[in-house]
Amino acid sequence: MLKKILKFGGTSVGTIERIQHVAKIIKKEYDFGNKVIAIVSAMSGKTNELIKMSKSIDEEFDKRELDVLLSSGEQVTAALLAGALKRLNVKAKSWLNWQVPILTEGKHFNSRIVNARTNEIDNFLNEGIAIIPGFQGISKNGDITTIGRGGSDATAVALAKIFKTDSCEIYTDVDGVYSSDPNKIPVAKKIEKISYDEMLELSSLGAKVMQPSAVQTSMIYKIPLEVRSTFTDRKGTRIFDHENLDYSKSVTGVAYSKDDAKLTIIGVEDKPGVAANLFEPLNDAQINVDMVIQNISSDEKTTDITFTIKRVDLLKTKKILEKNQNIKYKKITHNDKVSKVSIVGAGMVSTPGVTYKMFKGLAESKINILAISTSEIKLSVIINEENTLKAVKKLHTIFDLD
Amino acid sequence: MLKKILKFGGTSVGTIERIQHVAKIIKKEYDFGNKVIAIVSAMSGKTNELIKMSKSIDEEFDKRELDVLLSSGEQVTAALLAGALKRLNVKAKSWLNWQVPILTEGKHFNSRIVNARTNEIDNFLNEGIAIIPGFQGISKNGDITTIGRGGSDATAVALAKIFKTDSCEIYTDVDGVYSSDPNKIPVAKKIEKISYDEMLELSSLGAKVMQPSAVQTSMIYKIPLEVRSTFTDRKGTRIFDHENLDYSKSVTGVAYSKDDAKLTIIGVEDKPGVAANLFEPLNDAQINVDMVIQNISSDEKTTDITFTIKRVDLLKTKKILEKNQNIKYKKITHNDKVSKVSIVGAGMVSTPGVTYKMFKGLAESKINILAISTSEIKLSVIINEENTLKAVKKLHTIFDLD
Repeated sequence: MLKKILKFGGTSVGTIERIQHVAKIIKKEYDFGNKVIAIVSAMSGKTNELIKMSKSIDEEFDKRELDVLLSSGEQVTAALLAGALKRLNVKAKSWLNWQVPILTEGKHFNSRIVNARTNEIDNFLNEGIAIIPGFQGISKNGDITTIGRGGSDATAVALAKIFKTDSCEIYTDVDGVYSSDPNKIPVAKKIEKISYDEMLELSSLGAKVMQPSAVQTSMIYKIPLEVRSTFTDRKGTRIFDHENLDYSKSVTGVAYSKDDAKLTIIGVEDKPGVAANLFEPLNDAQINVDMVIQNISSDEKTTDITFTIKRVDLLKTKKILEKNQNIKYKKITHNDKVSKVSIVGAGMVSTPGVTYKMFKGLAESKINILAISTSEIKLSVIINEENTLKAVKKLHTIFDLD
Repeated sequence: MLKKILKFGGTSVGTIERIQHVAKIIKKEYDFGNKVIAIVSAMSGKTNELIKMSKSIDEEFDKRELDVLLSSGEQVTAALLAGALKRLNVKAKSWLNWQVPILTEGKHFNSRIVNARTNEIDNFLNEGIAIIPGFQGISKNGDITTIGRGGSDATAVALAKIFKTDSCEIYTDVDGVYSSDPNKIPVAKKIEKISYDEMLELSSLGAKVMQPSAVQTSMIYKIPLEVRSTFTDRKGTRIFDHENLDYSKSVTGVAYSKDDAKLTIIGVEDKPGVAANLFEPLNDAQINVDMVIQNISSDEKTTDITFTIKRVDLLKTKKILEKNQNIKYKKITHNDKVSKVSIVGAGMVSTPGVTYKMFKGLAESKINILAISTSEIKLSVIINEENTLKAVKKLHTIFDLD
């Protein structure tokens, strides 16, 4: 008998029929003798609908009340799922944020779970299924707080740790993590096992299977995850620690992001604090800076800094840079039609020649590399957007992922 | 400076624009220096939508979870209204059932408010507007409970008592209580002042302005009410104690109900307990029996009992009567196309001739009376349904209500 967290995302509970289907998945675990805590998202579209309502009242809608508003979405799913389970003669009960309670710290709309009371629910698990709305908790003051978009993954992982469950299964609308986007790269394959950090690189690069911060928490506390589909019986992808994985391949997957823009600031004064002065106002304006590459400039007293951002932020970013009195530079250039293609693999670090192989492959496909950035388990290049799929396919093939 | 409860019904908060309008009404009170606790319903249609969802999972959806589900409706309105007030620079804060807390007793879906904590909200009223979702509370066990359809009126009245407010204003989509249905009787007039019991007779007869049970609570605790429109500035109807009213007219209003059916059981044994034996199984089947009239039969050892029910319950009722082994009778007759027309007025009891005037008026209009029932402040007749509006118009005229 295992104690499990099962988390169901918005599309998995998007209609009444799907909620009934989720109830059947849970009943199977229950009949098998497992103890289940189900974490549910709001029905798909619901959170956006509520946010739209709030914005039509006030673009800067009060954050405390926004949390009260949004938390209703998961509350509805939790009640419906509890009713659907009882309909199947499975004992079940919903626990709202304040009923558990789930304690959070930090700002409204962006808090984090720090603790939860376990004894009452642990007792109930001997009899039935506990259902908890994801994405929410209460603060020390007794206010409802939410933990950021996609926060139901974070709830699942945090409660897996706090309730000391044997596993944490993320049910979603894809059946696992793929070696690349299966919609665009038909030869992409499902990955059976992956390490947390590979998963992190893949998910933050656009695999969109799980919230990166939830993967990070799992990595810190070594919570074994499984990502699987609500709509098929197929096995999903299991996410573990490095040590528990066996690397037959150096590269696990090829990820890419689109709608990027690249900015280069040429001839920046090369002295301490320049990068901080440069990026502070961008951070204040909530512009998400992705890759940052710094090169020594030709004259050695100045340097060139290249970074990428989302294309929609390009104009705003240029304005902020031009207004910035704290940095001196010669000029700014930009390219607003670039993409980032990355190979990810925990085995890369121990496999010589991966970098060379990647560059050679791209050269064979006559794809020009505009910038390069590397980490222990990732190698990213910026290329012209039009070449994205060609690059991904080529890399997928040369690293034996097809 | 007054402390007020303002209650806004479902149509009053039915759209974002209406919620913004309600915020303006509250701001006016706030600018005037009044302390306001706003009680809100779910946006119109929302509760029905949630009930429909629950029924599509299970016709007998678990009641505890139904309360969790439904309470989300008022929660959404409370958060949106708080945000709308803050947008107008009015300090405001929502308090959910468990945050007040509002304590209830009784069954799920049909509980009643017994107490609420006041100090925190009373302190806050010195600075801003407190917003509380109607229709809900929490039980001793910490479960969410709801207090029956239309329960936001009951919340308003209960909190008016517990918070010792100076008034309780019910904002709705009509601008007060009328002497009859203004949609059908164009000469119907708005009543400026009315007593609790007249209001009760009018509301339970279909005036639909306020929940009867909430009027009843107001009557017991002498909470002055005002029913007024969210959509006009016009004065509404004030609802008081008898003693505070001045009766220039014997009859305050003419009410009617449709879709009724009349059943007569002829030749029932005339002995103690017969009526109880007759109505117990109907009560068990949740059939709402309205008027009951008992006459001595011709042979003096038996009696005839006539009662009215809603037309939809007719077949079910007949079946139950025919199966009932505990009563003996000669036969059952029924008329499935009747209506009830009533004149209501606290001044009736002290005005001679009201009864005669009513019967004379109906005779002049050639309307046959099928049954008669009287109380201190009400006189009801059952007539053929086709004559309903003719009767209401006639009575409205002869009692000087036009």
